[in-house]
Amino acid sequence: MSSEPPPASATPSTEELSADLSAATISKKQLNKEARKAAKAAKADKAGKAEKPQAEEEDPFAANYGDVPVEEIQSKAVSGRAWTDVGDLDEAAAGRSVLIRGSAQLFRPVSKKMAFVVLRQCMSTVQCVLVASADAGVSTQMVRFAASLSKESIVDVEGVVSIPKEPLKATTQQVEIQVRKVYCINRAIPTLPINLEDAARSEAEFEKAEQTGEKLVRVLQDTRLNYRSIDLRTPANQAIFRIQFQVENKFREYLASKDFIGIHSPKLISGSSEGGAAVFKLQYNGQPACLAQSPQLYKQMAICGGFGRVFEVGPVFRAENSNTHRHLCEFMGLDAEMEIKEHYFEVCDIIDGLFVAIFKHLNENCKKELETINRQYPFEPLKYLEKTLKLTYAEGIQMLKEAGTEIDPMGDLNTESEKKLGRLVKEKYGTEFFILYRYPLAVRPFYTMPCYDDPAYSNSFDVFIRGEEIISGAQRVHTPELLRKRAIECGIDANTISSYIESFSYGAPPHGGFGVGLERVVMLFCALNNIRKTSLFPRDPQRLTP
Amino acid sequence: MSSEPPPASATPSTEELSADLSAATISKKQLNKEARKAAKAAKADKAGKAEKPQAEEEDPFAANYGDVPVEEIQSKAVSGRAWTDVGDLDEAAAGRSVLIRGSAQLFRPVSKKMAFVVLRQCMSTVQCVLVASADAGVSTQMVRFAASLSKESIVDVEGVVSIPKEPLKATTQQVEIQVRKVYCINRAIPTLPINLEDAARSEAEFEKAEQTGEKLVRVLQDTRLNYRSIDLRTPANQAIFRIQFQVENKFREYLASKDFIGIHSPKLISGSSEGGAAVFKLQYNGQPACLAQSPQLYKQMAICGGFGRVFEVGPVFRAENSNTHRHLCEFMGLDAEMEIKEHYFEVCDIIDGLFVAIFKHLNENCKKELETINRQYPFEPLKYLEKTLKLTYAEGIQMLKEAGTEIDPMGDLNTESEKKLGRLVKEKYGTEFFILYRYPLAVRPFYTMPCYDDPAYSNSFDVFIRGEEIISGAQRVHTPELLRKRAIECGIDANTISSYIESFSYGAPPHGGFGVGLERVVMLFCALNNIRKTSLFPRDPQRLTP
Repeated sequence: MSSEPPPASATPSTEELSADLSAATISKKQLNKEARKAAKAAKADKAGKAEKPQAEEEDPFAANYGDVPVEEIQSKAVSGRAWTDVGDLDEAAAGRSVLIRGSAQLFRPVSKKMAFVVLRQCMSTVQCVLVASADAGVSTQMVRFAASLSKESIVDVEGVVSIPKEPLKATTQQVEIQVRKVYCINRAIPTLPINLEDAARSEAEFEKAEQTGEKLVRVLQDTRLNYRSIDLRTPANQAIFRIQFQVENKFREYLASKDFIGIHSPKLISGSSEGGAAVFKLQYNGQPACLAQSPQLYKQMAICGGFGRVFEVGPVFRAENSNTHRHLCEFMGLDAEMEIKEHYFEVCDIIDGLFVAIFKHLNENCKKELETINRQYPFEPLKYLEKTLKLTYAEGIQMLKEAGTEIDPMGDLNTESEKKLGRLVKEKYGTEFFILYRYPLAVRPFYTMPCYDDPAYSNSFDVFIRGEEIISGAQRVHTPELLRKRAIECGIDANTISSYIESFSYGAPPHGGFGVGLERVVMLFCALNNIRKTSLFPRDPQRLTP
Repeated sequence: MSSEPPPASATPSTEELSADLSAATISKKQLNKEARKAAKAAKADKAGKAEKPQAEEEDPFAANYGDVPVEEIQSKAVSGRAWTDVGDLDEAAAGRSVLIRGSAQLFRPVSKKMAFVVLRQCMSTVQCVLVASADAGVSTQMVRFAASLSKESIVDVEGVVSIPKEPLKATTQQVEIQVRKVYCINRAIPTLPINLEDAARSEAEFEKAEQTGEKLVRVLQDTRLNYRSIDLRTPANQAIFRIQFQVENKFREYLASKDFIGIHSPKLISGSSEGGAAVFKLQYNGQPACLAQSPQLYKQMAICGGFGRVFEVGPVFRAENSNTHRHLCEFMGLDAEMEIKEHYFEVCDIIDGLFVAIFKHLNENCKKELETINRQYPFEPLKYLEKTLKLTYAEGIQMLKEAGTEIDPMGDLNTESEKKLGRLVKEKYGTEFFILYRYPLAVRPFYTMPCYDDPAYSNSFDVFIRGEEIISGAQRVHTPELLRKRAIECGIDANTISSYIESFSYGAPPHGGFGVGLERVVMLFCALNNIRKTSLFPRDPQRLTP
């Protein structure tokens, strides 16, 4: 193999690349037919050896391509070969021989003697070029084999890195691969239920197509979720879940730096943790049990257990029949609880530092991911202040009143009022992230500490991003008498939480904390329109699969 | 207040300190009586203001001590005062005035004019000295107030750091606090259901007491768990859950450094994830649902979704009626799944690097925690090799056979055989951490890839610490035909997992992964005898509370 870079290939244009689309999503019936066909092919595969397209003539380069039988991938041997990551390819690699495994995202046959294949790994793609040539060991049969593979099949490519004449459409724009060998590791069925190109389109593309009269397939939210393992491969989805990972990482890292320790509390509990009807019930070895609606009672018991400051990242379960853009029946709770010395503003200070650190981290270290999301779902960067704005609930009510919205000052804000308040605060204070505190006691859970000067109010707060609530928090009641009284007032059977209430008889420090919905943080930071976009396999009242 | 260090106090000996114990655990009835008494006292508290012991004469220093009414701690104001952490106190602080909030672990009245109070914060304790003196603003009434507080009450102490004549029993041995002011923030009931000193004793102390005829109270496992919020305050428990946090941190950090991303999969699913009867069932908005027995199917779908390498830290649920020292009905799963190029040894290599990194991190950076656990539960450091030993299942069977244990070579190892194999491997190879691979296919889950050369065996492994299994892993089947066939062979209704099986039709890379039980890792690294010791609020067939 020559170490000199081979000549740059004729590069297909954007239009040519995106013309290569399947017409529309297919029916379930068709899909099953395809599955059977693929199964049959796979059977034939095992009977013989590597399947090859029928050659009209003997191919001297037959060993350079073909389907790899599954037996070869059943941990038969360790070859010691090195695979290259697409994301690591750049101009410095030009002339190097590489071996790459990826998903075949796009095939473009140009002629009998030439074809392009775009390989993808996570968020990176690279263009591979096949040109029939005896010098390169590439036959026309090999070009045909490569061009006839089904999209999304897993493919191994061996080739030489070269520099194209002009930057390519693939994410690895500076280089392409001159293919020497190509093997299919695992075929996808020929027609996928959704096409990745369709799933990855932005609204702008649809608008443009409408003007030119082009008909594009729109993959609806439910179809995406039905075929989530394909949908997750879009660049935006790859980026969204990397952002989610970073939010969680920063949450953990920041709190650990402030002497919090991570704990895990049980999700199977004997009584409901928050009261109300929105609880999943089940039988636990013959006794009635619930799924925890939050780690609330347990993180408080951990504080009584002497840990000082704790946090938990874990699932929370709500059996609510809320069919909205922002509710899930199962979501990831980021919870924290801490001793306070005097005031629940100590908790607010942690939130201030924590979220400003998260926002900064995302903006500074996740530029590629944010740009990728922006390409499909354009959004304005979140506006926030270095020192987070705090307003009283009464001030919020007043702002709404002055803007013409009448609200019961002792009731809770509805979604619409929250949105409006978000807009008013953004106009007045230039921030889309703020804390609203001193809520009426009646709209908060039983374990919330009343205000010292007016028991109609509470030492509590909500935090908003872009006009939607993402955090609730408060000082908690730390004496058993008041806690029992408040539980009963709120209609909770104190007997089901007696070990929780008793915990406060054994020496309990004043404390407070907060809970955040991870999916909401990602959704609102990126101004996405639906929380199902930020849950890997979302659960809503209608959806339990996949 | 003088900046000169006050004179060092007369220090009570270890014996004097530990003599101050309650006689035995008390009955539930007594407990409730105490709770009512405390409630009554608290009521009286609110009616008046700070409760003071009745003074025979006017106390000019009455403002320097007393109970702080709850109103004062309802976030009334931010005073700007700075609290000192006990863990930060050292000789350099001598002469400084400090304000400390802690749990009053121990009271020792010496005379009318002198008393000791030991304050605790998490894993640190400091001795505070009260000596009646007009210069210091300390009255005999104040000494009496401090000495009469109930154990485990939350107390604020203001005082001056001084250096005692000889090192103290408290963890902060070099310094003590000369108290100037003492306020009780929240009283514990006078007689706690378990005493911290009793809960913190080692076996060695019991043996010694038996020799001297001293009668010590032993707090049994179930009593500990019933009063977990007290039990968690023992030094060993504080250390155990800090170790657990560090294991999880290192797991995340190491895998992130190897390009894994953290995901969260749903715990509410439509079919059982592992098959078998050990599954919790519930109704999900009218449809039957299960609690996930592992994130298995979902982490594999994430691999099909193009994430390359993923991990998850989350609860897993097993409705098993296993009443053993090592089974829980809910535990924390550390799961990972990754594309493999050729061989599942690529997964073993990750485990090798990961666990050696975890063990090193604990040994190097958690010395204090490990020593603390060792004081109550003595253990030998774990023996492990820099490069983890791998043995085939057949080799393991052979070793057992040679040692006189007959095992069905195509069956699974039972707990006893695992223990014995652990001893044999330790003797022969000098390690208590090893991988056993190539298990019989029949004893592995349906999604396990059979061996290429013998379908009676599988590309799978278990990992052992001190003769107990902590990890299971394998290469997975990545073609839908074989997966469906294996599911049916293993008695699983393929229809309930159809979206999982279909995922492999859409282009699925070869992959493998593993699952670890977090509680088991901590239990076995520290050679603890019961997994309930490493679960914050354990769930077993009998226990659903607290």
